[in-house]
Amino acid sequence: MKAVRLHDYHKQPIVEEVPEPVLSGPLDVIVRIGGAGVCRTDLHIIEGQWADAMAPRLPYTLGHENAGWVQAVGAGVSNVEVGDAVILHPQPSCGLCLACREGRDMACDAAAFPGVSDHDGGMAEYLRTTARACVKLDPATHPADVAALADAGLTAYHAVRKAVPLLPPGSTAVVQGAGGLGHIGIQVLAALTATKIVVVDRDPAALALAARLGADTTVRADGNQVSAVLDVTSGRGAEVVFDFVAEQGAENDAWDMTAAGGSLFVVGYGGELRIPTVAAVAAEKNVVGNMVGTYRDLVELMVLAESGKVNLHTRRYPLDAAAEAFDDLALNRIRGRAILVPQA
Amino acid sequence: MKAVRLHDYHKQPIVEEVPEPVLSGPLDVIVRIGGAGVCRTDLHIIEGQWADAMAPRLPYTLGHENAGWVQAVGAGVSNVEVGDAVILHPQPSCGLCLACREGRDMACDAAAFPGVSDHDGGMAEYLRTTARACVKLDPATHPADVAALADAGLTAYHAVRKAVPLLPPGSTAVVQGAGGLGHIGIQVLAALTATKIVVVDRDPAALALAARLGADTTVRADGNQVSAVLDVTSGRGAEVVFDFVAEQGAENDAWDMTAAGGSLFVVGYGGELRIPTVAAVAAEKNVVGNMVGTYRDLVELMVLAESGKVNLHTRRYPLDAAAEAFDDLALNRIRGRAILVPQA
Amino acid sequence: MKAVRLHDYHKQPIVEEVPEPVLSGPLDVIVRIGGAGVCRTDLHIIEGQWADAMAPRLPYTLGHENAGWVQAVGAGVSNVEVGDAVILHPQPSCGLCLACREGRDMACDAAAFPGVSDHDGGMAEYLRTTARACVKLDPATHPADVAALADAGLTAYHAVRKAVPLLPPGSTAVVQGAGGLGHIGIQVLAALTATKIVVVDRDPAALALAARLGADTTVRADGNQVSAVLDVTSGRGAEVVFDFVAEQGAENDAWDMTAAGGSLFVVGYGGELRIPTVAAVAAEKNVVGNMVGTYRDLVELMVLAESGKVNLHTRRYPLDAAAEAFDDLALNRIRGRAILVPQA
Amino acid sequence: MKAVRLHDYHKQPIVEEVPEPVLSGPLDVIVRIGGAGVCRTDLHIIEGQWADAMAPRLPYTLGHENAGWVQAVGAGVSNVEVGDAVILHPQPSCGLCLACREGRDMACDAAAFPGVSDHDGGMAEYLRTTARACVKLDPATHPADVAALADAGLTAYHAVRKAVPLLPPGSTAVVQGAGGLGHIGIQVLAALTATKIVVVDRDPAALALAARLGADTTVRADGNQVSAVLDVTSGRGAEVVFDFVAEQGAENDAWDMTAAGGSLFVVGYGGELRIPTVAAVAAEKNVVGNMVGTYRDLVELMVLAESGKVNLHTRRYPLDAAAEAFDDLALNRIRGRAILVPQA
Repeated sequence: MKAVRLHDYHKQPIVEEVPEPVLSGPLDVIVRIGGAGVCRTDLHIIEGQWADAMAPRLPYTLGHENAGWVQAVGAGVSNVEVGDAVILHPQPSCGLCLACREGRDMACDAAAFPGVSDHDGGMAEYLRTTARACVKLDPATHPADVAALADAGLTAYHAVRKAVPLLPPGSTAVVQGAGGLGHIGIQVLAALTATKIVVVDRDPAALALAARLGADTTVRADGNQVSAVLDVTSGRGAEVVFDFVAEQGAENDAWDMTAAGGSLFVVGYGGELRIPTVAAVAAEKNVVGNMVGTYRDLVELMVLAESGKVNLHTRRYPLDAAAEAFDDLALNRIRGRAILVPQA
Repeated sequence: MKAVRLHDYHKQPIVEEVPEPVLSGPLDVIVRIGGAGVCRTDLHIIEGQWADAMAPRLPYTLGHENAGWVQAVGAGVSNVEVGDAVILHPQPSCGLCLACREGRDMACDAAAFPGVSDHDGGMAEYLRTTARACVKLDPATHPADVAALADAGLTAYHAVRKAVPLLPPGSTAVVQGAGGLGHIGIQVLAALTATKIVVVDRDPAALALAARLGADTTVRADGNQVSAVLDVTSGRGAEVVFDFVAEQGAENDAWDMTAAGGSLFVVGYGGELRIPTVAAVAAEKNVVGNMVGTYRDLVELMVLAESGKVNLHTRRYPLDAAAEAFDDLALNRIRGRAILVPQA
Repeated sequence: MKAVRLHDYHKQPIVEEVPEPVLSGPLDVIVRIGGAGVCRTDLHIIEGQWADAMAPRLPYTLGHENAGWVQAVGAGVSNVEVGDAVILHPQPSCGLCLACREGRDMACDAAAFPGVSDHDGGMAEYLRTTARACVKLDPATHPADVAALADAGLTAYHAVRKAVPLLPPGSTAVVQGAGGLGHIGIQVLAALTATKIVVVDRDPAALALAARLGADTTVRADGNQVSAVLDVTSGRGAEVVFDFVAEQGAENDAWDMTAAGGSLFVVGYGGELRIPTVAAVAAEKNVVGNMVGTYRDLVELMVLAESGKVNLHTRRYPLDAAAEAFDDLALNRIRGRAILVPQA
Repeated sequence: MKAVRLHDYHKQPIVEEVPEPVLSGPLDVIVRIGGAGVCRTDLHIIEGQWADAMAPRLPYTLGHENAGWVQAVGAGVSNVEVGDAVILHPQPSCGLCLACREGRDMACDAAAFPGVSDHDGGMAEYLRTTARACVKLDPATHPADVAALADAGLTAYHAVRKAVPLLPPGSTAVVQGAGGLGHIGIQVLAALTATKIVVVDRDPAALALAARLGADTTVRADGNQVSAVLDVTSGRGAEVVFDFVAEQGAENDAWDMTAAGGSLFVVGYGGELRIPTVAAVAAEKNVVGNMVGTYRDLVELMVLAESGKVNLHTRRYPLDAAAEAFDDLALNRIRGRAILVPQA
């Protein structure tokens, strides 16, 4: 089959023929890929930024946002059948450790991250995953339409979902960073809460889209964004700030936008939070870390996607055009998300 | 009446005669003081460290950990009667703002902090407070025995109480700092959870006391305390770390002692937390600020104190000996807490 | 001033002249009534059904759903000023008991219920209430437009709000009874969740309105409603059933519509639940009682009302036409709610 | 191997030779039994009370409270190894359905209940179970000492654990029924809360034991137990009532002992709750169903058992003496629990 393989860091991945994956364990599932999202993380992998942390042996197949149709199942698989349309949680998990038993799938003791860690990903005609990664889709849903929700969407959903109890009517939520994750976060906030949604971004076009997706107020990140957020919250700040940027000082702006008693949800990364302990104490403020999402989160996100409450603009590329997709992403030429579609 | 009054920063407060306070509002309560805790915060006030933030007009009466007997009540007071033994929440609150309506007493829009902010405190024969500050005591409880729980105890209780849902059997809690607050925190943990309690301190005597109060493991803070905590938690760290120190690097040690998925409860202050956002995200860790406690917290703490589950070693001084008490505290000559007892 | 007074049970109330109320306590507030909802409870009061439980001394003024403008305030009132538009929580509360301190306003040890208990209500030109009952409105909101939310709306809001954490995407909520409370409940569900809303009622017109307000599925209560609900939930039942009927067997239907692990929220009353303990145990099902709502609930409901997410059809009557309003209600001639408007 | 087999309802089970179980699936685990609890449910099974609901094909092996040592593991098992001491969750679960993914193990779509449903139980030398049922024990723990916690203990733990957030200091918990489950419930309450524990039972000996295990107050169930509970709760009732009896009227007594705002936790079964909806509404009271417990619950309970906070009096019988154990249980000749020990 064809697959998009990374042979060397700092070089474009190559589309080449590799053997199809086969079932090796009783809970394995082979998925015929219907769509694989192209993500900024892929660019980071190509640049070698994850080489040390994830240590994949090259060459390997990229692709960690995958959806498709079940092609074959191991003997112990009871939750999906051949032919089912599925989206895949990015981390197949063991189901036996205490974290799995509690639904904290990302904390599984034995998790793999195909396409990122040392396991072939889904930019290929077929992918081997496991039963515990499979979320069934409505047969009417095309996998390519939702694939990018498997990681980026899941990450935004997870953070917002955790914050819902903190966002009753009358509260304010700030979304800092109205890119791919932020736009999904805004739609999830609009679907699950009646909070006032304030979106902060440098890019007027992103803010305009944010307003169409449900933002009540948009704030240009022009250097005065902290005071602008305080202005629209009677000087108090927001009960929850979702920081999808978290670098170049945005992480500390996000803290300053957070109200007394409120919580900063860190989703992006790169920068360093510097918090005087007296500020955390006196205002009884919190910081909440967020890492991708749970299987249950992905199930719920699919409910929102299939009912039209969360939408994603996508542009499809055949697998052979992977290089073009990577270039378009690197050069910001894509509105929404690029999706590789093997069968196209 | 006699009162301990601060006339000038950097000078010892003076015991002098002042007029007794009188009822001025319908919800006012005059309390005959039975005990007023002497707290390290008092030393900080004398040193002028709170001069800017709290702006009290000098001279004024110190004392923010107060208990006694109700002497007089305003026309609108229905929760206490003359003669009742009471301990006083340190912040009389309005009862009308949204924070008060939710039980977040410390966030009251109109709160005062007698003995700290520009209101006379309780190191005197009588104190004016309000109905909403009064927690009734069992008549058998002497106010001097519990006064120091009004602020220091309340602060430790509040942080532990918030963390209880995070500390099921099989979890680990670290208490960093086994001083006055820490010792109460340990007792509250032992009363309200079956978590494994690990106490970290520089002082072997404090650790020995911690072990008697319920610590399962004690760790000397000798520079290797982070790795020692990791050792006793199978390398994972603790689900909750209570940081009662939070200065001179301890605040970042506390973060490093916190397990993936866990929470750092900041109670002390002074230092600056420096958290790479990638560390908060990848391990899904949290920081929780804690500021004194709620009225409900104080009610519950009194239940524990009156049933013997939380004990405080105290040393009583007559009001005239206030200077001696301040000196003993400054020179670490007190085991437990110094209490001024006007009637002694 | 004019007031609608009940002189004898089983006789129509009379509009007559009575003295205006005056401030008697420091937290009292006099409100110039802008709208007083006419509620089925008023008909029950007239019929004497509450005579024993509430024991009002006759004659007294009816009206427990009140909104208007602040006319005068006692010396201790700091949350509202003369001229403010306000809606009134139906139970002025003490602010001193433990229930008040926790925000459980309905459980106040010293609560009154003007217009129901032995206190004059708001079907009059002026009403005496207290500061703790006042929720400020946007000056642009006419009190008559929201008055009926003060009790009926608050009750529906409270039950739904408690249930929100039980209703993630993919869940189902049943609303049994699409009358005044039910219609508000549907709108609140649509505003605060993405659950699937199934509405059950006998009346096709009520179901048609329910569909316009946000119901995903409507079920005619024709005797087969339990199996119809099971049909639309894959045989499982609903995670939450809100029972706004709770009499004539509907209460037990509601239990049967509740899924394993789910919760029956009882809001209406009249009937008797009969639950075999084995059914509660084996399916781990719950019953949740609901009584009006908290002050915080009313604040949040006003946010939804003022942003257009909760709407109420009303018909205004001058105070002199109170008898006509009672008759119209008794004869089901009103769509939505009747509101007495003293100034009309 | 030897096994205790039920051949006919209403006849004593027989100890006979049967083939040893073998691994049949990748997640199967064979356990050498170290202890199998004899439970009143076994007597009910013998009497045929579960014949319709569970439909086991006779003959089959009884025993649903099992612990022992791992003898063999399937290819997909990663959480236990041969030789590990383990206690078994009574319901092996699939790990793939949504209930399993959330930790609601008892609600697994594909659960079996060996020794109750149509699967051989653990009153034998060996038992076949699955990886997801195994909770590792400290090697120093003898399985026979904890086996009876696998079902009876787990059930009591689960109910108390769910109620912990409702039982802060100052609250009251009633334990109705101080038999096997009740005695464990009392110990768990004492370990996890500082609530006031009130125990109600007919039997003075059971009450005496309850007092030794942590009950603060004991109440003889002599017909006046409801008023006795109201007396010790200032007329309010208890915030939580655990009903381990739930038959012969006790279920409705339990409701009457529950305070306004409180919750009745139903654990036992047999009777029918009759609750006027007006009583649930006016006092905002709740009913909570409880069914055995989760895997996580069993892990936590083992922490309490292995640290000595939960103790169980047991009497060991060799497998051949099963009939004697059944008789002793039926005739109430056992203090604590009877445990069959194949290797004894």
